[in-house]
Amino acid sequence: MPVRVAVDALGGDRAPEEIVAGAAAAASPGLEPVLFGPAALEVSGLALVETTAEIEMDEHAVDAVRSKPDSSLVRSVRAVADGDADAVVSAGNTGAMLAASLLHVRRLTGVHRPGIAIVIPTRKGPSVLIDAGANADARPEHLVQFAHMGSVFAEEILGIAEPEVRLLSIGEEDEKGNQLTLEAHALLRASDLRFAGNTEGRVLLAGAADVVVSDGFTGNVALKTLEGTIKTLLGGLRDELASSPKGKLGGLLIRPAVGRIRERLDPDTYGGGYLLGLNGLVVIAHGSSSRVAIENAIRMAARGVEHRVVERLHERMATGVLASGRSTTQTPTPEK
Amino acid sequence: MPVRVAVDALGGDRAPEEIVAGAAAAASPGLEPVLFGPAALEVSGLALVETTAEIEMDEHAVDAVRSKPDSSLVRSVRAVADGDADAVVSAGNTGAMLAASLLHVRRLTGVHRPGIAIVIPTRKGPSVLIDAGANADARPEHLVQFAHMGSVFAEEILGIAEPEVRLLSIGEEDEKGNQLTLEAHALLRASDLRFAGNTEGRVLLAGAADVVVSDGFTGNVALKTLEGTIKTLLGGLRDELASSPKGKLGGLLIRPAVGRIRERLDPDTYGGGYLLGLNGLVVIAHGSSSRVAIENAIRMAARGVEHRVVERLHERMATGVLASGRSTTQTPTPEK
Repeated sequence: MPVRVAVDALGGDRAPEEIVAGAAAAASPGLEPVLFGPAALEVSGLALVETTAEIEMDEHAVDAVRSKPDSSLVRSVRAVADGDADAVVSAGNTGAMLAASLLHVRRLTGVHRPGIAIVIPTRKGPSVLIDAGANADARPEHLVQFAHMGSVFAEEILGIAEPEVRLLSIGEEDEKGNQLTLEAHALLRASDLRFAGNTEGRVLLAGAADVVVSDGFTGNVALKTLEGTIKTLLGGLRDELASSPKGKLGGLLIRPAVGRIRERLDPDTYGGGYLLGLNGLVVIAHGSSSRVAIENAIRMAARGVEHRVVERLHERMATGVLASGRSTTQTPTPEK
Repeated sequence: MPVRVAVDALGGDRAPEEIVAGAAAAASPGLEPVLFGPAALEVSGLALVETTAEIEMDEHAVDAVRSKPDSSLVRSVRAVADGDADAVVSAGNTGAMLAASLLHVRRLTGVHRPGIAIVIPTRKGPSVLIDAGANADARPEHLVQFAHMGSVFAEEILGIAEPEVRLLSIGEEDEKGNQLTLEAHALLRASDLRFAGNTEGRVLLAGAADVVVSDGFTGNVALKTLEGTIKTLLGGLRDELASSPKGKLGGLLIRPAVGRIRERLDPDTYGGGYLLGLNGLVVIAHGSSSRVAIENAIRMAARGVEHRVVERLHERMATGVLASGRSTTQTPTPEK
């Protein structure tokens, strides 16, 4: 049986063309993308589930999910809930994806809040940032759950053994932080995670840890600051170079190097954000996703299915780790 | 009477040499730097107040300030409190500067919390980020005070008329944010500030607003992410270019352009962070400050004195703006 990945054909700024092309590119004997969208897309030769409605990028998330049950977004998410697909990929409205996933796919038992895991391509290799924006407000125990979910993700999707976890804060010293991170720090220290302490935004792109934990507000601000700074800086360099003949020549000569850096930093390599902590694998691709981004997102989703990420998260939850922030599999040794 | 700026000669990684050199360079008929440090520094020809102790960069802030009343840091801060200096500049322990300032210079009446204002040199010009790290936890009304303090700073130190204020959040839409920013957003809307709504980290370096308001935790994470991303990206580019002969040649040709960008983005241009909301002007320079950074910090401090920044903050507070988040100078017009 091939892995079946539901694909929201109408999600994203470049839908449906780039979405359909990405799905077609990802298709293989072991991976069957299933498009959700209007009948006209049948020409693509891919499996198609016909839907009649569309959720726009700027619609109110909860209202849209409720009022458009036959939208490509809601139907593709429901396919996972109903067992008709193993995972779902959409580049559509993030809020609507969150709402539809919570409503239909539902949380794993014991998970307080799902978190969005994003892979930052750092100089040292991929680094998972969780939560990148699912929860604007969080409690310390949520951050511990994010750490566990991010660790399972790093192990299974990125192939990192015993991932190192750090907490995003305002100083590396244990006593630096706000009330939320200070309490989360203590819980993470007491956990059986490979927790290495705090980290700072200044090393986020250099490679802070295999898993960087944060509340969704801070994580989202940090991620957008990182992405925006790269864009502004490279744009500024391009403009500076264009302002002199010597700069123009230099610009031509460095183009391959800049291209390699852009490629290495390209968030599309990892297809987008992974909504972890649910009874199914949900991937939220960038709104601006190209066919390559969608292809990668579908492949990564399939990899998550093959590596049983949801089952692994469920197992960690079942041993009490996700519920309490501590593993109950390690029973304390009685003193002699 | 020249403006007198107290200078902590032992603060910073490159003290005392770079500090003394920066102070000497800033000295002019209208600006008298006064060094605080050991007697040996008398050779510099600058006014010197002899002190006997030193607070190290990694000491516990509150303990150090209490146990070392005759340190160069504490004495230079006290000079402002005692009226012996108009402002103080230190590149020393940030926490100790905060603690000493709160203890000796004290808050302006009505100010809940002082905030650190940092100038980000954006593509559109200087932008003030406040709070960049003085308060790890904050309440909505603190953010409104930061907005007022940042506006006075932008007007008086940067010469920006009617500065535009935005709130750092996770989306530009009014309803995006966490509990803190949603409440602060409503208060800012109701204020007489030129509030233009939310902004995001992705435009922080491109130029989000004249004043960007944030709690100290988020502001510090965003600032460090921005600074670290610039450093990592330029370092990565350098390494990529060094890996091929064509890249090396290109690297030579683009060096002036990269130099101009580095210069434009150099945080030393603005000398560091301004601790606003106190009964005196306190400038916390980067720990790694060079003589140029110290010279700029001293000049900027003098400019703040000449433009009566503290008095302007006091006036805003007196009209009730800082205390309530709303101006009482605009009395509501009775309905007819």
